[in-house]
Amino acid sequence: MTQTDLITRRERLLGPAYRLFYDEPAHFVRGEGVWLYDAAGDAYLDVYNNVASLGHCHPRIALAITRQVETLNTHTRYLHETILDCAETLLATLPDHIDRVMFTCSGSEANDLAVRIAEAYTGRTGIIVTELAYHGVTQAVSQMSPSLGEGVVRGPHIFTVPSPLRFSSETRAAGFAQAMDDVIARMTKAGFPPALFICDTLFSSDGVISDPAGFLKPAVERVQAAGGLFVADEVQAGFGRTGEAMWGFQRHGLSPDLVSMGKPMGNGHPVAGIAMRAELIEEFGKKSRYFNTFGGNPVSCAAALAVLNVIAEDELMVNVRQVGAYLTDGLRTLGDESKAVGEVRGAGLFFGVDIVTDGQPDGDRARRIVNHLRQHKVLISATGQQGNVLKIRPPLVFRPEHADRLMAALSRAVSHP
Amino acid sequence: MTQTDLITRRERLLGPAYRLFYDEPAHFVRGEGVWLYDAAGDAYLDVYNNVASLGHCHPRIALAITRQVETLNTHTRYLHETILDCAETLLATLPDHIDRVMFTCSGSEANDLAVRIAEAYTGRTGIIVTELAYHGVTQAVSQMSPSLGEGVVRGPHIFTVPSPLRFSSETRAAGFAQAMDDVIARMTKAGFPPALFICDTLFSSDGVISDPAGFLKPAVERVQAAGGLFVADEVQAGFGRTGEAMWGFQRHGLSPDLVSMGKPMGNGHPVAGIAMRAELIEEFGKKSRYFNTFGGNPVSCAAALAVLNVIAEDELMVNVRQVGAYLTDGLRTLGDESKAVGEVRGAGLFFGVDIVTDGQPDGDRARRIVNHLRQHKVLISATGQQGNVLKIRPPLVFRPEHADRLMAALSRAVSHP
Repeated sequence: MTQTDLITRRERLLGPAYRLFYDEPAHFVRGEGVWLYDAAGDAYLDVYNNVASLGHCHPRIALAITRQVETLNTHTRYLHETILDCAETLLATLPDHIDRVMFTCSGSEANDLAVRIAEAYTGRTGIIVTELAYHGVTQAVSQMSPSLGEGVVRGPHIFTVPSPLRFSSETRAAGFAQAMDDVIARMTKAGFPPALFICDTLFSSDGVISDPAGFLKPAVERVQAAGGLFVADEVQAGFGRTGEAMWGFQRHGLSPDLVSMGKPMGNGHPVAGIAMRAELIEEFGKKSRYFNTFGGNPVSCAAALAVLNVIAEDELMVNVRQVGAYLTDGLRTLGDESKAVGEVRGAGLFFGVDIVTDGQPDGDRARRIVNHLRQHKVLISATGQQGNVLKIRPPLVFRPEHADRLMAALSRAVSHP
Repeated sequence: MTQTDLITRRERLLGPAYRLFYDEPAHFVRGEGVWLYDAAGDAYLDVYNNVASLGHCHPRIALAITRQVETLNTHTRYLHETILDCAETLLATLPDHIDRVMFTCSGSEANDLAVRIAEAYTGRTGIIVTELAYHGVTQAVSQMSPSLGEGVVRGPHIFTVPSPLRFSSETRAAGFAQAMDDVIARMTKAGFPPALFICDTLFSSDGVISDPAGFLKPAVERVQAAGGLFVADEVQAGFGRTGEAMWGFQRHGLSPDLVSMGKPMGNGHPVAGIAMRAELIEEFGKKSRYFNTFGGNPVSCAAALAVLNVIAEDELMVNVRQVGAYLTDGLRTLGDESKAVGEVRGAGLFFGVDIVTDGQPDGDRARRIVNHLRQHKVLISATGQQGNVLKIRPPLVFRPEHADRLMAALSRAVSHP
């Protein structure tokens, strides 16, 4: 079946709300480590994957899933040890005050549950997100995701703060805190005092904003002082992505009330969750039971437990720091050599690279670079307000030789008209 | 680790919103077909499972998952054939006018997306559910789930109709239609004309209400005539559960606008979806993209495709009809013999059995029966307003000899004081 046939069939069966990557969509049939293979057997370097974060088809994760699928798959209304082993291993990576975890199938469900828990605990409904936030696709959290566009109607309880990217690196901490003060005052006046502030601790959809580490702290403390909870959305930044810490909020020295997680948690298997302070779920549990049919099932927990073990045993965060530093050097050097490359931001193996023309954001050029790379079998994407920020996010098992291949292709792509 | 240790550990790690089945919770370590095994190797007959609906650890489903996990697991922004094969096979089981499908991870996400699509299409927000409905756990659909209790605050856009069980079998169609007329009038007056009416086509949480087949039709037509959409929630009744048809709405001769599905779709693997008329998703797709990281991934679709194939190739609906009829006879005979057993409702392999004392609903007695059965290694549950309806829902591969074992145990349990 040709690409065109597949696309036609897809439109006929799935409809238009699904989007495909790239001007020439990609069709992969096999994956292994950092590589994806098309039907012709050609290998593509996957530099845009924080789901199969340990590499495609990681044998230990595949084995954990296979064994459990062949043994038992039930739910949380029966006792099972794997959910407890998984919860315990997960909570050991989090600060002591985060001591309960609940499992869902997706990051969307995790953030949605965080909202329900925060509302039950605070008795408030006001929510603060950044101006280009993305937190998921349920009705509640799609409203909290301005990056989905104007088509998603927002309730009056949702308030936005400017992206931290609007402040220079030097003024970011103070500027963002002042913006938070302003929005808290505005929403309180409007009758929606904050139940929660949620952010992706790497601000992926806002254009990747990582530094200076700690800049988030004053703003978060403002929310907590005003009686709101802070939800660290670690779907993007969690599970060792930054190399410096298991969780993105730790880079900023934050003390979150809830921590949501998803994408890389099962290396592609649908598992996600929300960890929190015990008293939050005590309050929620009094008011409502929570049963998620697939959430926390033995197979999902076996996958998640294996992921946690591989990150620790293979010392992947060391690799993230080393290869991350190597890539940072490469990207900065490219920035020195090419006028198309502006600021390079990021932490560990997550980069945002501004593409500019005459110093101005150039989304079209970023799009051309992304598609040029795809034609040369290197997979990345773009993000940010103008779509001009290259989003580079390889698996945690990325090695220096992969970085070299990326940099060679990227160097050609940015010099291409 | 003892049961008590497991329970203590669970409370310490997961918190109080999770509930366990049975006065003495069960701990299973292995499953096969209709059997679950505890750590001592004792076999329990699973008569309460519409997730592992083809039987625990079905070898063809396990193989489909294993193969795909070892080959490739990506997402819907790349082309992949399995999602298309799965969508095509699924849509072939649905009426012609239902011609698009979108994939999610859970029935909650499917119903949540149905709400978003219905709101985008109708420009309305009013929602009708039955008084004891259950449609999931996201913020939007937990509000549409009065069976979760008063602790879940409902928005002013959610309206309830009485359970069809409030009408006698003879007056059910007309009475439920009249109730629908009344609620449509009330909500329209309140400024919330109906965007949608959603119901489980077997009314599981309302006490299992199956007959007379067709009773739902006049009420659904009232909603559609008033400009609202009808969402058939097939999470419980779908995938051949009733034996008479692949989908519960077909028993009632209904023409739904959207069909949501979940639990048995991947025989335990987290996959769910929403099928609908093309024009509904056209409207939604104009306003917003939809990307669900794990929804429709190759592994989930391989599992769902295998489930559809097994149901067809093993002619499981024939088995459901045969063993369902056999069990119906057995339950009716038990009803004739025991004063504790009142009305027996259901279709295929899904039964609601009223437990009564002196003709009145007796939830305590139902609870004792459920726990007595668990002590004798037969697993069922209870539902309904007073919790007095035994919910009997074996896997579709249940055989007459399993039915005999259930009936023998149930007969002893109902005669036990």
